[in-house]
Amino acid sequence: MHIQAKVESHRLTVPTRGDAHVIDLTGEVTRVLGGGTIRDGIVTVFVIGSTAGITTTEYEPGLAEHDLAAFFERIAPRGATYRHEQTWHDDNGHSHVRASLLGPGLTIPFSSGRMTLGTWQQIVLIDFDTRARTREVVVQVVGV
Amino acid sequence: MHIQAKVESHRLTVPTRGDAHVIDLTGEVTRVLGGGTIRDGIVTVFVIGSTAGITTTEYEPGLAEHDLAAFFERIAPRGATYRHEQTWHDDNGHSHVRASLLGPGLTIPFSSGRMTLGTWQQIVLIDFDTRARTREVVVQVVGV
Amino acid sequence: MHIQAKVESHRLTVPTRGDAHVIDLTGEVTRVLGGGTIRDGIVTVFVIGSTAGITTTEYEPGLAEHDLAAFFERIAPRGATYRHEQTWHDDNGHSHVRASLLGPGLTIPFSSGRMTLGTWQQIVLIDFDTRARTREVVVQVVGV
Repeated sequence: MHIQAKVESHRLTVPTRGDAHVIDLTGEVTRVLGGGTIRDGIVTVFVIGSTAGITTTEYEPGLAEHDLAAFFERIAPRGATYRHEQTWHDDNGHSHVRASLLGPGLTIPFSSGRMTLGTWQQIVLIDFDTRARTREVVVQVVGV
Repeated sequence: MHIQAKVESHRLTVPTRGDAHVIDLTGEVTRVLGGGTIRDGIVTVFVIGSTAGITTTEYEPGLAEHDLAAFFERIAPRGATYRHEQTWHDDNGHSHVRASLLGPGLTIPFSSGRMTLGTWQQIVLIDFDTRARTREVVVQVVGV
Repeated sequence: MHIQAKVESHRLTVPTRGDAHVIDLTGEVTRVLGGGTIRDGIVTVFVIGSTAGITTTEYEPGLAEHDLAAFFERIAPRGATYRHEQTWHDDNGHSHVRASLLGPGLTIPFSSGRMTLGTWQQIVLIDFDTRARTREVVVQVVGV
């Protein structure tokens, strides 16, 4: 059998409410992998823009709708002083700081077409901006 | 010479004590790379589950046994209120928040079979759960 | 057309001032990609050493020269007590903690030779050490 490493590139369009809205991307990334031809490799999930981030969490209401937002508000409060806001006369300095901290992307292994996630481990986008956004998320698949 | 990109997938089983236990994985990941056939590429180290994370640190007792744990206790205290705990009647809301922040995986370049780590830079798993766990860590190697 | 996955490895040498100096690497990573032969895939940007990290941000003076540094000083203050400093009789415990939190690397998709970054999203190195450093950054490109 001839095995040839390949790259497949996909985009997801993700509407968000902003304000630390946590959105489960696991189903969409799983569908993208299932619709492709690469069975073993790594998938990089990357959000375009500098006020959102990607990580994993157990996607249940306590964490997704309260605890993660409360945590980010504690460490990078919306009401703190940010020079970014003076530069642009906007209100999302905390959004930028939180997004840089969390990071815009995550690379996940997969084998035989299945990502190696735990049962209670979902891929999530957290949108830290101060308004609703439509996010573009790149799903880049590399493997055989 | 014909060079063909490949994917090799491995698993590590890592016993931990929980409570921000920091475990050096560098030796095991190095052994995995040494036992494979891929000499140049990237290796993704990914922990399955949503209460542990992967990063690098200088693995010495001050950081590994005290400073990292003290830092995470300061920013996401065990004693704070987490709705996750009300959902599941458990005690590890802080573990989830810390793990989402740190992230479950890390991708490291390697060349001629050697990861491009600094001398005082080790790959570590931090287990934030509130009890001893046996962790599955995926080591996914992509390259030529 | 025969497409063959490849790996290309590059190094950047980056002088920094330390003390949470934020350096925009986007131009150099773009040049590295433009000088190579891989058009579609992923690029891993990884800093060697355990007192610096890689992320993305909007590279403007408010964030790059003030807000990010102020944020890290708030969550991991230079003046807090770190056992690492007692181990080595140095002064950079906070640098290590911040670097482990941010993470040493980032993997970015690219298509047709262009990274999938937003217009106001730059790749940055943050050097948390307490003195000027010359950093080695690995730019590992995998794709077709």
